[in-house]
This record gives sequence, structure tokens and C-alpha cells, in this order.
Amino acid sequence: MAAAGRTRSVRPPSTAQRRTALIGILSSGGRVGCSGRHASVAHTGGDAAGPSGGRATVRPVYNDPVPRSLRACFEGGCSVNTSRARLLELWRAAAEAGTPLPSEATLAAELGVSRPTVREELIRLESHGMLTRLPSAGTFPNRFALDMGLRLDQSYEFSDMLREAGYEPSMEVLSAGWGELDAVRAARLDVRPGTAAFVTVKRWSANGQPVMVAVDHIPASPSRSPEPDASATVFELVRELRGSTVEWELSFVEARLAEDEERELLGLPDPSSVLQVTMTGISVLGVKLYLAEETHRQGVVPYGLIRTVPR
Amino acid sequence: MAAAGRTRSVRPPSTAQRRTALIGILSSGGRVGCSGRHASVAHTGGDAAGPSGGRATVRPVYNDPVPRSLRACFEGGCSVNTSRARLLELWRAAAEAGTPLPSEATLAAELGVSRPTVREELIRLESHGMLTRLPSAGTFPNRFALDMGLRLDQSYEFSDMLREAGYEPSMEVLSAGWGELDAVRAARLDVRPGTAAFVTVKRWSANGQPVMVAVDHIPASPSRSPEPDASATVFELVRELRGSTVEWELSFVEARLAEDEERELLGLPDPSSVLQVTMTGISVLGVKLYLAEETHRQGVVPYGLIRTVPR
Repeated sequence: MAAAGRTRSVRPPSTAQRRTALIGILSSGGRVGCSGRHASVAHTGGDAAGPSGGRATVRPVYNDPVPRSLRACFEGGCSVNTSRARLLELWRAAAEAGTPLPSEATLAAELGVSRPTVREELIRLESHGMLTRLPSAGTFPNRFALDMGLRLDQSYEFSDMLREAGYEPSMEVLSAGWGELDAVRAARLDVRPGTAAFVTVKRWSANGQPVMVAVDHIPASPSRSPEPDASATVFELVRELRGSTVEWELSFVEARLAEDEERELLGLPDPSSVLQVTMTGISVLGVKLYLAEETHRQGVVPYGLIRTVPR
Repeated sequence: MAAAGRTRSVRPPSTAQRRTALIGILSSGGRVGCSGRHASVAHTGGDAAGPSGGRATVRPVYNDPVPRSLRACFEGGCSVNTSRARLLELWRAAAEAGTPLPSEATLAAELGVSRPTVREELIRLESHGMLTRLPSAGTFPNRFALDMGLRLDQSYEFSDMLREAGYEPSMEVLSAGWGELDAVRAARLDVRPGTAAFVTVKRWSANGQPVMVAVDHIPASPSRSPEPDASATVFELVRELRGSTVEWELSFVEARLAEDEERELLGLPDPSSVLQVTMTGISVLGVKLYLAEETHRQGVVPYGLIRTVPR
């Protein structure tokens, strides 16, 4: 792999480039609604936001005892099956008690699945820093794994992440509509400059305090769906506009000084630092489906990661 | 899990708390040497840094065609065995060609291992966003996984991460010696305030440009090893001073304004944003072994993450 190839593909847009585009989006007006980001949310129909930027409380559509932060440990596992849910309960019990998990054979009997299946599930949890399997010693849970706030290494609906970290989430769509990709964003999405894209600007709050603004670009043809539902999640919009599902998010994380507009949107003094997370959604076949530029206010919600130390 | 419990455990030290401690450490002087951070490095004996803060080029002690960014996908896999190394070669070839990987049966024959073993290795790679396994469709590599710069979700030697991202790393130990933990750090380490700790301050550069300053605290008794080798890695120091190995790093990521001392150490104008990564090293039994406070200069090296989107 040539170093040049790496350098080319990893540069987020410069601050100046972002500033120009964000101003353009915000000043262009556009439709306003209330929306979830990644997963389906139930809309509080009565208080859809108007152009002045109202606020809507978001309610989850699921009611599941297993939190998403655990469910996200299983790729393909948003629809947690019974044995997985039970395994997660056992993991949690062991983590809280500070004891090893039962043996693979015991777990297999308890869950009603084969021992190789148990082993595969344990490997998934191990890869996410939830436990470690020590040969001939046992399976040890990482009891800190439930106390990490938002896990930056996981991808699920931002409102759910806030709720699980102990905050009451809300969100607004500040702007939505069709535009054209500039050269920098087009390059990041492997399309030509000027390609049409559906663009949304959304703001999330935690306990009423603004914490994140996301600008999403989905390159597509307006003829496919001239009026997509801006309140849909980016995943739903990608499915509608691209006919494809998102497998991975390539994310780049950077601390930078907040721009004037961002400080205004997030309620920050000058100067302030914000965390920028720039994501490209990728299909299973390596097609870039969308670009998301998130600006995170700091000091309100902790952003955690668990990393396993190679032996 | 009570929200209060989460909130308690996830707060990094405040900026003011950090400032005070960092100034104290830097002004206390201490011994100076040249050091690796996490893994063993070969020291260039002739140019060990003096108290004025010289610079030493760090050379890796391994010579392995499989980069650490891939090896880190396997917990316990720093000593990559032959079949894993071969699997990673096959992954890379498929990623570069944009083709699916061979079937599990073919891989098992090729690697000389059982099919369940192959499946387990593929699950590990899948959990790290390196590929996806689609039932009855195939195993698809994520061809972007090698082009992510430093992967913030992986833990290995920082000099190696810089080198793999295409930079020439160097590092200095700015300070090292025994101190006492203040109340905030003691709380983060689950020990009493005033507990003795071995403290190092190190600075890394990429192509001669300072990019990171790390302050590491290892609570221990000075009587166990009154003069530990400050040029050892934090993992080696933990082993010497605590008799234990590190299994996980709980990390918190935050953008914040750089303090005067940090701007000086990293060569930054005022105001500047830095990325703070605060880590607690955890043993397999849940004992907190060290606290590392890293301040990362931004805009030089990209910090990437790959997140799998739950279906």
C-alpha cells in the first residue's frame, strides 16, 4: 500500500471548506421537520418544528431490555435473537458480580445452542472489549464496559446513545433539500463535482442543551425521489435514494476550533473547541453512499472507547 | 445500571485539574531518557536525550510483513501465527482486488486449520470492520480498512501507528519520577489520594513535528522498584511495578483548548484545539493499573475509526 494512496483518502475537508458549505446550507433555508438520525424513531406528531427551528422530543420505537450499546456488539444483531439476549444478560450479571462467565458447555446448554455458536458469540463480545477468554482460566467480563457513556467506536442512533448515557435526547432538522456536491465532498464520495445530493442539517440536544450538529450529504438523482422524507434517518434515505444499505462507517475524528455558526448552533463561547467526526457510509461492495459531518459540543456527554491491548 | 453510577465513572479530569498537574510534573524536572510507549523499541544508543530534551529516532524490533493495524485485530495476536498471517495476506489481496474472500472450506484447506477456526478468525476480522460475511453470498473485504491513518479504536505502540500512517516517528522522555496521586487521578484509579505513582511525560513527533504529549501515572510502591527504567513502555512498567498485564484501555476522547504549556510542547498558536485521550489500563480482573493522559496535536496525522452499522 503506497503512503500516497493513504494520504489521499484520509484527509477530511479543511475547516475553510466546511465553513463555506455550512454557511451555504444554513442560509439557503430549506424544509424543516423533526427527525431521527440513524434508526427509526416515533415522531411526536403535534410538535413538528417550523422554519424557526422548534424542538421535538424523540421517542424510541423499540422496547428492549438489552441496550443498543450491547446489541451493537453484534453486527447484524439489531434484531437480537433470544439466545443472544440471554447471553448478554448473563454477561451483565457476571460483570456486576465480578465473576467469570459460565463455561462454554454450560452456556450452550443454558442458551440452547451449540458450543461453536457460543464460542463465536464470545469472540464477538471479546472483539468489542466486553470480555476476555483466557485458555484454561475462564471467560472474564470487562465490568467497565457498560459505563463508557457514548461509545465512539459504535454506530447506532444518536438519540439512543444519549438516552443510554443518561440524558433526555431531542432533535431538530434545521435544513433539508437538494444541492450539488463541491469538489472536496465529491472526492470523498468518489463522484464528480456537481453531483446532485440530498443534504440535511440536524441538531441534537441532551437535556435541552445542544450537543451535536450533523450535515449529511447523500449523492443521488432528484428524479428518483424528488421529495424524500427529510425526517427519515440517513440509513432510510440511503435506502430510498440509492437502493442500498450501509455496512460500515469510515470515521475521522478531529479536535478543532468552532466556527461562528457552530458556536451559535451549539451555544458556545469564543474560542471553543469542538469534536469533528467526518463519516463516509460504505456499502458491502465498497461503494460510498453518504458523507456525514458531525460537530460535537464537548464537556456535556463523555465519548468513550474500549481498546483491547494485544498480548 | 443506575445513570448516577455511569456519570460518576466517566468524567475525565477537568482542564483546570490537568493544567495544575502537568505544570507540576514539568517543573519538577526528573530524569530524561528515550523511550517507547507501548511495545518494545530498539534504542539508538548513541543519541539518548539529555535533560535539555534531545530527540531519538525509534526503530521497531520486529520485522513483520503484517502491519500492527491488522495484527491488532486479533486480541492475543501480537505474536501472529502462520495461519493468521496467511489469512491477513489473503484478506489484503481480496481487498486490493475488490473481490470476495475464498469460501471457509477453501480457506481452511489453504491455511491448514479447521473450518470452525477459520470462521472464528473471520468473526474477529468482521468485528473490527475488516470484512462482512453475508449468508450464502460470500465474505466481502472492506477495502478501505488499510487506509485509515491511525485507528483510534486500536491500541498499539504509537511510534508504529505513526510509521504505518506514513510518518517517521521519534520520541523523547521529558520527565520521569515518583510522585503522589491527586484526588482526581486517585479516584480514576480507585486508590487513595496521595498514593505513590511513577509518572512519565513523553513527547512524540512525526517527521520532526511534535504531535503528542503523554503523561502516564502508574500507582505502585517505590520500594518495589525504586529506580524503574523510565525508557520502558507503560506496559513494561506496569508489569515491573504492579506484577500485572494490561487487558483493556478504557479511553475517553475530548476536544479542548490547548493550555500554554501544551501549545509550547506541541508548537501550536493561541488559541488551538487539541484532542485529549484519557485512558485507564485495566487488568483481566478489573484492576485499574495506570492512567494515561494524552494530548494530541491535530491536523498532522488523521485519526480514523471503522464502525460497523448494525443491520
